[in-house]
Amino acid sequence: MRVLVLGGDGFCGWPTSLYLSDKGHDVTILDNLSRRKIDIELEVESLTPIRPIGERLRAWTEITGREIGFVNLDIATEYDRLVDVLLETRPDAIVHFAEQRAAPYSMRTSATNNIRATHNLLVALVETGVDAALAHLGTMGVYGYGWSGSAPIPEGYLTVKVPTPDGELEREILHPANPGSVYHMTKTLDQLLFSFYAKNDGLRITDLHQGIVWGTQTEQTARDPRLINRFDYDGDYGTVLNRFLMQAAIGHPLTVHGTGGQTRAFINIRDTVRCIELAISNPPVAGERPQVLNQVTETHQVLGLAKLVADIMNADIAYLPNPRREAEENDLIVRNDQFLALGLEPTTLSDGLLEEGTEIARRYRDRVDPSKIIARSVWRKGMETAEDLIKELPDED
Amino acid sequence: MRVLVLGGDGFCGWPTSLYLSDKGHDVTILDNLSRRKIDIELEVESLTPIRPIGERLRAWTEITGREIGFVNLDIATEYDRLVDVLLETRPDAIVHFAEQRAAPYSMRTSATNNIRATHNLLVALVETGVDAALAHLGTMGVYGYGWSGSAPIPEGYLTVKVPTPDGELEREILHPANPGSVYHMTKTLDQLLFSFYAKNDGLRITDLHQGIVWGTQTEQTARDPRLINRFDYDGDYGTVLNRFLMQAAIGHPLTVHGTGGQTRAFINIRDTVRCIELAISNPPVAGERPQVLNQVTETHQVLGLAKLVADIMNADIAYLPNPRREAEENDLIVRNDQFLALGLEPTTLSDGLLEEGTEIARRYRDRVDPSKIIARSVWRKGMETAEDLIKELPDED
Repeated sequence: MRVLVLGGDGFCGWPTSLYLSDKGHDVTILDNLSRRKIDIELEVESLTPIRPIGERLRAWTEITGREIGFVNLDIATEYDRLVDVLLETRPDAIVHFAEQRAAPYSMRTSATNNIRATHNLLVALVETGVDAALAHLGTMGVYGYGWSGSAPIPEGYLTVKVPTPDGELEREILHPANPGSVYHMTKTLDQLLFSFYAKNDGLRITDLHQGIVWGTQTEQTARDPRLINRFDYDGDYGTVLNRFLMQAAIGHPLTVHGTGGQTRAFINIRDTVRCIELAISNPPVAGERPQVLNQVTETHQVLGLAKLVADIMNADIAYLPNPRREAEENDLIVRNDQFLALGLEPTTLSDGLLEEGTEIARRYRDRVDPSKIIARSVWRKGMETAEDLIKELPDED
Repeated sequence: MRVLVLGGDGFCGWPTSLYLSDKGHDVTILDNLSRRKIDIELEVESLTPIRPIGERLRAWTEITGREIGFVNLDIATEYDRLVDVLLETRPDAIVHFAEQRAAPYSMRTSATNNIRATHNLLVALVETGVDAALAHLGTMGVYGYGWSGSAPIPEGYLTVKVPTPDGELEREILHPANPGSVYHMTKTLDQLLFSFYAKNDGLRITDLHQGIVWGTQTEQTARDPRLINRFDYDGDYGTVLNRFLMQAAIGHPLTVHGTGGQTRAFINIRDTVRCIELAISNPPVAGERPQVLNQVTETHQVLGLAKLVADIMNADIAYLPNPRREAEENDLIVRNDQFLALGLEPTTLSDGLLEEGTEIARRYRDRVDPSKIIARSVWRKGMETAEDLIKELPDED
């Protein structure tokens, strides 16, 4: 397949691009390198030393003999160029990672950036008539946590009963949106865009509600140091499990926001890349509603993860205020039947890959800037400021 | 109250601004005059001759002795100036009409324009800490038509039963979104923004799901010809009842899209302005979810309206393809209990105001450009083109 990977220079996009290329697909990355520019603005770098995109791509060709195309393009602001690329490449599939990830980072601009990016892409598909299967990276965060009590979170759609004057109607609805951050909110907007353009224009769309990604390397990125994947550890972009590993590696207490009673869904980066190929190989047909798959393999309570890492690596735990308005504790049971049916064999925490993370965190510990570890962004009106957060942090060793 | 009216130069915004000023509120209009600029691009004008904003405002002061402020500002692109205006005026209430209305007009840019406008406003309120009650003009179109069978459309929220392993949970959810156009889709995105910022930041928001507005003048706009309100008759911006009146006035067949079996909700412009004052005078308190009110007073089937106007004004009816993907016929029962409880006394079609429209359409019939009557925009991939539409139109007299 000819595949465009939008955002193919990022933490999920890069290993996905290599995996798809390795599997024989003809891959072109579209990326404006914004994630690297955000590093500059935040004055923080990936824990792992990532190479410039050109060097990465040359290394891949040198090692595998395969070429990956690259176009430096901002889909949120360069609509006409996006149309040109679609017409030139006529892709069979498009993987859309091109949204700014961090919840609090520059929330006003990233929210409108994300919605413009997705909307531009949809309109460009309609305008060009390019009939590509679109796979978009959503998030488990669209469902919120704790909304459905003991009921498992379904895959995108929920069957409900609606009262009528004569009794009840059964209706299948998009699962109600309960985002806990601006970033997750933008993914709930995306869902409505997808529903509309699937219905109105017959676009073929898969929305992948991904859990928290852990791990760093895939089989492909591990082949050469120049192919190494990102590892974000800072308070804005780092995700929970990778952050615990880094914190333990440098003797920093593991920072738990709230009680740690939050249960979240997880997936290893090696499964992310497999899921993407499964998704674009099994798209919906035109006229169908968007296909929604939960891209997760297991759930864990945050505090349980902290204790696990603390035990393995002999670390302390520090409790910080929770920036999200949410229950202190929640259950989480998530359906992922569709990926299992498509053949996904989950990589779980018990598979020993924590060691890989531990090893990477230890190898690159000298690259950590300790001042970037604590999340300092203001997530909502009236929340504790950075200074409050720091004051409440126990003294470090 | 100090009230900002965003989009206060438009069809609903202008009479609302005058009404609120007349009621003693201290009104400032924020508007980028985009509706007038769209007239220029579409090469069409309001059927009624509207005056430049400065002249309108001077006339209002001359007649009433009251001042209405005006700031030429694009809230979608001038975030910093918006923040400045909020800090200078510290409004008690904000009425947000500042979204581009027409469904098909420049759908890509208007959709992202609308979402940026609303998001900028919300973030500016959070950033400035201005605790204004926000009333936003939504649309009945967010609910879609025919989704709930014989059940009345509730006001924003729907109580549903969700299956669980142990039985059922009752949950109140935002009514599922079923927009029939890009424009209505943007209003469904607004709803999610409102839910998030009400929950996360305690913003006080009322979303007014308005029906199709008919009528032209209010008590205030009728006081002087320089205060006259817009009357859009073109295929992009004109709304159904006003278009029928104009078509009949010039001997054009009344254009019905589809079978005319669609039932829609309506409200007279005189009730719109009253509803706005009721809404901003009865806002939710901080911490509450957004308040949603259905701003409608009656429902009619489109063909029934066409026949009514055809009878009164001796006109023919022409059937054109329907650009929306929707059922040919639908029932529509809409709850509007909240506005009735707040004291709204509905102005209905039977109240003789059709005569006003008829009179205006006849008085200004020479201003009609017949080439602008048929809707020529492409609403979706594969729909009939303008040429198809014209071919199918019966010969005009």
